This record gives sequence, C-alpha cells and structure tokens, in this order.
Amino acid sequence: MDRERLLRQIDFILEADKEKTIFRQTHITNYERCENDAEHAWHMAMMVYLLKEYSNEKFDVAKAMMMALIHDVVEIDAGDTYAYDEAALATQKEREEKAADRIFGLLPDDQRDELRALFEEFEAGESAEARFAKAMDNFQPLLLNNANGGGDWRRHSVNRSKVTRRQSGTRRGSEELFKYTMELIEKNAKLGNLIDE
Amino acid sequence: MDRERLLRQIDFILEADKEKTIFRQTHITNYERCENDAEHAWHMAMMVYLLKEYSNEKFDVAKAMMMALIHDVVEIDAGDTYAYDEAALATQKEREEKAADRIFGLLPDDQRDELRALFEEFEAGESAEARFAKAMDNFQPLLLNNANGGGDWRRHSVNRSKVTRRQSGTRRGSEELFKYTMELIEKNAKLGNLIDE
Repeated sequence: MDRERLLRQIDFILEADKEKTIFRQTHITNYERCENDAEHAWHMAMMVYLLKEYSNEKFDVAKAMMMALIHDVVEIDAGDTYAYDEAALATQKEREEKAADRIFGLLPDDQRDELRALFEEFEAGESAEARFAKAMDNFQPLLLNNANGGGDWRRHSVNRSKVTRRQSGTRRGSEELFKYTMELIEKNAKLGNLIDE
Repeated sequence: MDRERLLRQIDFILEADKEKTIFRQTHITNYERCENDAEHAWHMAMMVYLLKEYSNEKFDVAKAMMMALIHDVVEIDAGDTYAYDEAALATQKEREEKAADRIFGLLPDDQRDELRALFEEFEAGESAEARFAKAMDNFQPLLLNNANGGGDWRRHSVNRSKVTRRQSGTRRGSEELFKYTMELIEKNAKLGNLIDE
C-alpha cells in the first residue's frame, strides 16, 4: 500500500468533516434547527438514487451521487451562500474556486483532478449527471420548506418569482419533478408563504 | 406521471430526514458534539467512493453508496445502538426489523423491496458491496475518534480487544485498510485511550 496516498485521502476525509458545522438557511423537519451541508448532501444523494426514474436523460448514478456528496465541500472555506442573497452571490464563484484549489488539493493528484472535475461539472450543469444532481439540490430544500409550512420563505420574505426562477434548474434535470415543484410554489403563494408580486 | 408513486417516494424522503436528529456516540472533528446518523451516512458514502481502490473485491459503487446512505434509517424507530453496549445489542435485531417494515413500507412496493433487500444485504455482510460498506461503517468512526485523541473510547472505557474485534468487519472489506486500523489501535492503546488488558 502507498501510505502517503492513503494519508492524503484521510486528510481530505477529515477536512470534509467540517461540512457538519456549516449551516444552511433551510430547516430540518419540524423547523427544529437549520440543516448543515453534510446532512443536505446526504439527503440529495439519496434522492438522486430514489428519484432517478424522473430524470430527463439516462445518467451515471454513482457519479451523480458523488457530485451530490461533495458539491458543497468548498463552503468549508467559502461559507454557505443563501440562494436569495444577491450580494453574497456576486462573490460566490471567486470564493469557491479558491476553496476548491485548497480542499481538493489535499487529495492524491489523480483524485484531486477527478473530484475537482466532478465539482466543476456540477457547477457548469451541462452533463446529464450534473443536471439531475442540480435538480435535487433545488428540490430537496423545496420539499423541506414546503413540509415546514414555508417557514424559510416567510422568514426571508422571498418572492414567488425568485423561487420559480431557481426551480428552472430542476426543469433541466427533470420535467416531471419541475411540474410538481410548480404546484408546490402555487400552493405556497396562495397560502402567503411566498410573496406573489 | 404516477402521482401516488411520487408522493410515496416523498413520504420516505421526509421520514428519512429524521436521521438528522438521531445522535451517535462518535464526535465530529474537534470533539464539538456527537454526529448524527445522516452525517455519518454521508461521510461513509463519500468514503466508499474515495477508498474503493482498497476493496478486497470489485464491487458496484452506486449500490454500496446507497447501502451506506440508508443503512441507519431503521434507527428512526429503533434508536442508535452503541457498538459496545451489550444490553442494547441483544435486542437490536428485533427492533430494527420492525422499523424496516414500517419505514421502507412508505415507499412504492418495488422500491420498498429494493431498499429492504439492500438493507438486509448490508446487515448480512455477505456481498462485496456489503463488505466494503460495512468496512466504511467501522473505519469512519475510528478515523474521527483517532483524530479526536480517542475521546470516545476514553469516555466509555473501551477495551482494545473489543475495538480489534469490531475492526474484523473492516478486514472482510479491505485487508489494506484493516492493517492501517490495527496501527491506529496500537497507537491508541499505547496512549492509554484504549484499555490494554
């Protein structure tokens, strides 16, 4: 065994552990507390597998699951950027690229390149795997938020149009799930959980 | 789209969310707090992918990752059973089977059967996927605990022989990683973090 290689893999695995301390805006079931990046990624990866039949295209399931598992690792350095925070969104790309250099750089060179490519592919959203993983990245918090009576939207006074725009990412991965998200948005707008301009 | 089917899938996805509230004995990096089942499963699934080269046998990566992601879902009803709690271990099997009936039963019948079979296969540990996923189930908390100066072992006054016995599960999945776990155990016994009878 190449001991140096294993130790680099373990360095990355222990660094990734910090995702358990990065909190998102979305609350878990019963609105008890916000969920963290590790929990979100776990939920997303499970959804990639369970909902794969709704993908617009055939895709490599293991690849899309791994994309889901690691897509937020850059937030260890760059922090979580709320989907509706315009100021933070403006600097997000630069902060996350720098983080990707450092964090994927902990891995052996071949895996550094492989995971960095997976991350970039996810960000670009131009492959079947990235489109479906991104759909789950949008659909997972929508499901939680809807189950929690739209509490996260109300807390941030979110406009219906912004959520609808964001769910266009779901459409690129799954027309079928997109239709369902439009129904959930309609319901939450009627209930006043989303601001209907 | 079969709406009834999608709603059953979503029921399971939202039920699984409760794993975020089930805490294990293992602490996250910096011994800040215990980790929960969702975080543990996320970490394990990532390790299945990153460390697959050390498996004793070739295996289906997506299948082993999904095993890792759902292997603790039964703890929503049955609770976490600490690896070194003999009394709880005696009733674990029965409690977990009952939980599996209810929780996987939320899914459409085909996925109920598929995930139940994945769970049983993981438990039995007789396939290449189950052996490697189980190796990660043992190796992940060992890595965290070692990184935390063996705090969890000290807190529970754990004997070296018990940890060594448990790591035999790692050996069935990976001879190479097993060798490394034996070194970590040796180190922690020397440091007094494990009781060396």
